[in-house]
Amino acid sequence: MPDKLAEARERLARANRMIANEGVLDAFGHVSMRHPIDPGRYLLSRSRGPELVQADDILEFTVDSEPVKPPTARLYSERVIHGEIYRARPDVNSVCHHHAPSILPFCVSLAELKPLYHLGATMGTSVPVWDSRDDFGNTNLIVAKPEEGASLAHALGANWIVLMRRHGATVAGRSLEELVFRTIYIARNAALQIQAHSLGDISHLNTEETEMAGAFNLEPGPVMRAWEYWSVRLDKAEGTWRQPRAKTATRRPNKPAAKKKPAKRRR
Amino acid sequence: MPDKLAEARERLARANRMIANEGVLDAFGHVSMRHPIDPGRYLLSRSRGPELVQADDILEFTVDSEPVKPPTARLYSERVIHGEIYRARPDVNSVCHHHAPSILPFCVSLAELKPLYHLGATMGTSVPVWDSRDDFGNTNLIVAKPEEGASLAHALGANWIVLMRRHGATVAGRSLEELVFRTIYIARNAALQIQAHSLGDISHLNTEETEMAGAFNLEPGPVMRAWEYWSVRLDKAEGTWRQPRAKTATRRPNKPAAKKKPAKRRR
Amino acid sequence: MPDKLAEARERLARANRMIANEGVLDAFGHVSMRHPIDPGRYLLSRSRGPELVQADDILEFTVDSEPVKPPTARLYSERVIHGEIYRARPDVNSVCHHHAPSILPFCVSLAELKPLYHLGATMGTSVPVWDSRDDFGNTNLIVAKPEEGASLAHALGANWIVLMRRHGATVAGRSLEELVFRTIYIARNAALQIQAHSLGDISHLNTEETEMAGAFNLEPGPVMRAWEYWSVRLDKAEGTWRQPRAKTATRRPNKPAAKKKPAKRRR
Amino acid sequence: MPDKLAEARERLARANRMIANEGVLDAFGHVSMRHPIDPGRYLLSRSRGPELVQADDILEFTVDSEPVKPPTARLYSERVIHGEIYRARPDVNSVCHHHAPSILPFCVSLAELKPLYHLGATMGTSVPVWDSRDDFGNTNLIVAKPEEGASLAHALGANWIVLMRRHGATVAGRSLEELVFRTIYIARNAALQIQAHSLGDISHLNTEETEMAGAFNLEPGPVMRAWEYWSVRLDKAEGTWRQPRAKTATRRPNKPAAKKKPAKRRR
Repeated sequence: MPDKLAEARERLARANRMIANEGVLDAFGHVSMRHPIDPGRYLLSRSRGPELVQADDILEFTVDSEPVKPPTARLYSERVIHGEIYRARPDVNSVCHHHAPSILPFCVSLAELKPLYHLGATMGTSVPVWDSRDDFGNTNLIVAKPEEGASLAHALGANWIVLMRRHGATVAGRSLEELVFRTIYIARNAALQIQAHSLGDISHLNTEETEMAGAFNLEPGPVMRAWEYWSVRLDKAEGTWRQPRAKTATRRPNKPAAKKKPAKRRR
Repeated sequence: MPDKLAEARERLARANRMIANEGVLDAFGHVSMRHPIDPGRYLLSRSRGPELVQADDILEFTVDSEPVKPPTARLYSERVIHGEIYRARPDVNSVCHHHAPSILPFCVSLAELKPLYHLGATMGTSVPVWDSRDDFGNTNLIVAKPEEGASLAHALGANWIVLMRRHGATVAGRSLEELVFRTIYIARNAALQIQAHSLGDISHLNTEETEMAGAFNLEPGPVMRAWEYWSVRLDKAEGTWRQPRAKTATRRPNKPAAKKKPAKRRR
Repeated sequence: MPDKLAEARERLARANRMIANEGVLDAFGHVSMRHPIDPGRYLLSRSRGPELVQADDILEFTVDSEPVKPPTARLYSERVIHGEIYRARPDVNSVCHHHAPSILPFCVSLAELKPLYHLGATMGTSVPVWDSRDDFGNTNLIVAKPEEGASLAHALGANWIVLMRRHGATVAGRSLEELVFRTIYIARNAALQIQAHSLGDISHLNTEETEMAGAFNLEPGPVMRAWEYWSVRLDKAEGTWRQPRAKTATRRPNKPAAKKKPAKRRR
Repeated sequence: MPDKLAEARERLARANRMIANEGVLDAFGHVSMRHPIDPGRYLLSRSRGPELVQADDILEFTVDSEPVKPPTARLYSERVIHGEIYRARPDVNSVCHHHAPSILPFCVSLAELKPLYHLGATMGTSVPVWDSRDDFGNTNLIVAKPEEGASLAHALGANWIVLMRRHGATVAGRSLEELVFRTIYIARNAALQIQAHSLGDISHLNTEETEMAGAFNLEPGPVMRAWEYWSVRLDKAEGTWRQPRAKTATRRPNKPAAKKKPAKRRR
């Protein structure tokens, strides 16, 4: 089934660019998905900024994070983050590691990230924090060794996001689309929490609300609605978006349709 | 009068995109208007991100929030927000429900949103807060049942905005144009209040100033001036804007007009 | 000298759009300049968002803020801000009234705006604050009557900016170019002060530093360098900017010049 | 070797525009590099906003900051910042002086800039602060005299960044690419620190982590990955970016390839 794989690579490349276009990923960080046919493998780009990732950049790795084919390009150092989570969590089919500006303050302070509104509830009821110092002492902070990846995966446990002290965060999803939704809306919730914090005491979602709102928003309806939105925004940023032609034409008196049509066609 | 309806759908679609383009709406939230001919109906898009809404997406609903024609696409779950407000408030002809980043901090903290400058005075002298827990206990936060919409409409009362705890806000207007103005400038006022809060005690508008400044800014002059501005900004974002040709030509010595004109025409 | 006036109108329109493009002006606010030939008159746009102002929109007013020709379009309500300052200050040749997001927090709190770096020193050594309540009690905050404009001009005194409680700010310049520089860099300084405030005690420029740094940065060199920069940024935002062709061609081994040139020519 | 110099000028011009495009430089500030052939000279643009700098603008200066050829355009007043650092630090081959919005709060308060995550570790283990008042009393803050540049270079010492009270910062690199990386990621770290500060106590990298993470991220892999990313973002901002054509074509059922290809080619 070569088409299924080709489509997965294109969709994964697009997810990389979408999350980057929303300001959650910058020159660093990466997004992967489990191989659509072989669950013992995963797909991940060669080493480059996620905003630049195209389908041609997507390579296959075993869950040991070894490239399936001898690589001709530089690889991400932190592949084990992905491999070790896929090994530990059969229910996870997509992973994003990032250093979002709104999430980092919760990685370098003792403030607890909490779901503050229904869309942030997709973070789940518990957000564990992993500190590389606990198991490995002083390091360069990079999660490059299998035991480092396994330690992080252990800290993630059955949750959907793990914060990494002085580093960033890793987010998991049951599907690529769910991952994109969760990654972006946790970042939005974090930005909100920082702003709200300056206003005084905060009222967050309780456990039951978090579970119900999280489940509702991860239904296909909301997830695909958000995917379409971020996808169109990406197209606009990449200059490939065209305003759709109306099926039911409306003429506005001061803008003759004859003049307007070619302008639309041109762009 | 089919033209009046067609124009309303186009204008409503544009309002959706304008408010989204100003950062007040994202993948979620929606904007509606009362049907221009039948006051017992309202117009609202099918379920999609407001930045993507086109005239073709706009459907008709009864005030019971039932689609007039059998729907062929997914509908917004929270239609009752609109329907119940149109039912309760004959003076309201347009409604926006959103989760603006600057408004949410006031939905999750006890800080009171206040008019701080003349443009923010359009929020009115009182900003009620509705908490889904009061009437319905723990929920997924979504306002989907008629009784939830009615409870929210009751909390709105005779005011123009109601904040929703751990969720967002709903804004009302006597016209679509007034709604757009009020929605965007309340969001700007909220952002200002968060910034000002960090500097110490705040001097807000008193009741009389709020009433006078609110009334002044909702006159057709300011409202249409702002609409034109946001509309042009939307055109720029959508790539359909062209710099107007000067009626009175001015030649600048270092840029010969002959060279400049084709460049303008091309874009 | 019709050319001098035509050029002034074009330059003033551009200044309106430049300041708006830098986020200091939005749908409201306005920029004027003294008439280049008749010092008893000034130039100001008809009522529209400053980002939209073109040379054709610029009208002539007497210092009584009466239009020289019978107006065919809506005029700004707050023209007297400009007229009364031109009357009171013969050394002022350009005025901007705005509600910049970074300035407003200083208009609604008791925090004093201070020059924190050399570029902010263009605000001068004193920043008076005017409160409409002092002379006029509760109003709609709009400065529309000649006596309101005169009161504001009196508060400005010999300074270069006056903050307006619960409203915004008015900035003055000896030239249009100086005004643009001062307006934008005071807004940048204000944003910096809000950020710095959260970090603890602030070290601001003393009087002598403010005078020396302010004078240095208002020399033609810095002022025109900044004008060129904001002007190019405006061209980019308006889609009229083209990357300049290199005079001294450089060939890069991996990008053959033959392929690169037509791409540049096309845009 | 004229090609080596031509390439250096083009690359330096691009670095100017890249750092500006990331919001670290505005109308002011400048980026230089040591002459690729003659280590007693350096390359720096004529006086203009760094976002506008093209290869043709790059001039040669001696370490005394004298232009090698008689200048035909205005020069930066603060060239001595560059010259004196090149003189004092043979290991430095590139220098950036800037007034980044996120760095300035640390220049006007007593808060210490600290590495909070691995990418910020490139600032090094010590960030000295220079105050023009200490050696020169009240000035216009501009570092224009050789002795002022030498005083600043002395304060920089063996470090990689020096903060300048009430002014900005100067950053050094062993190469242009390293400089760009360090400049941008210190600015990102500073923004993070301001945000984190509002949440309470901050956990920063310790000395050993800073050294290891700094060394790792300044390897060619991360440095060139970030360069490519910022370079593509610059191309997008300048309108010269085109989405790469896929080598391995994927057809999506709802978008026929025949229709999609010409659209891509056109842009």
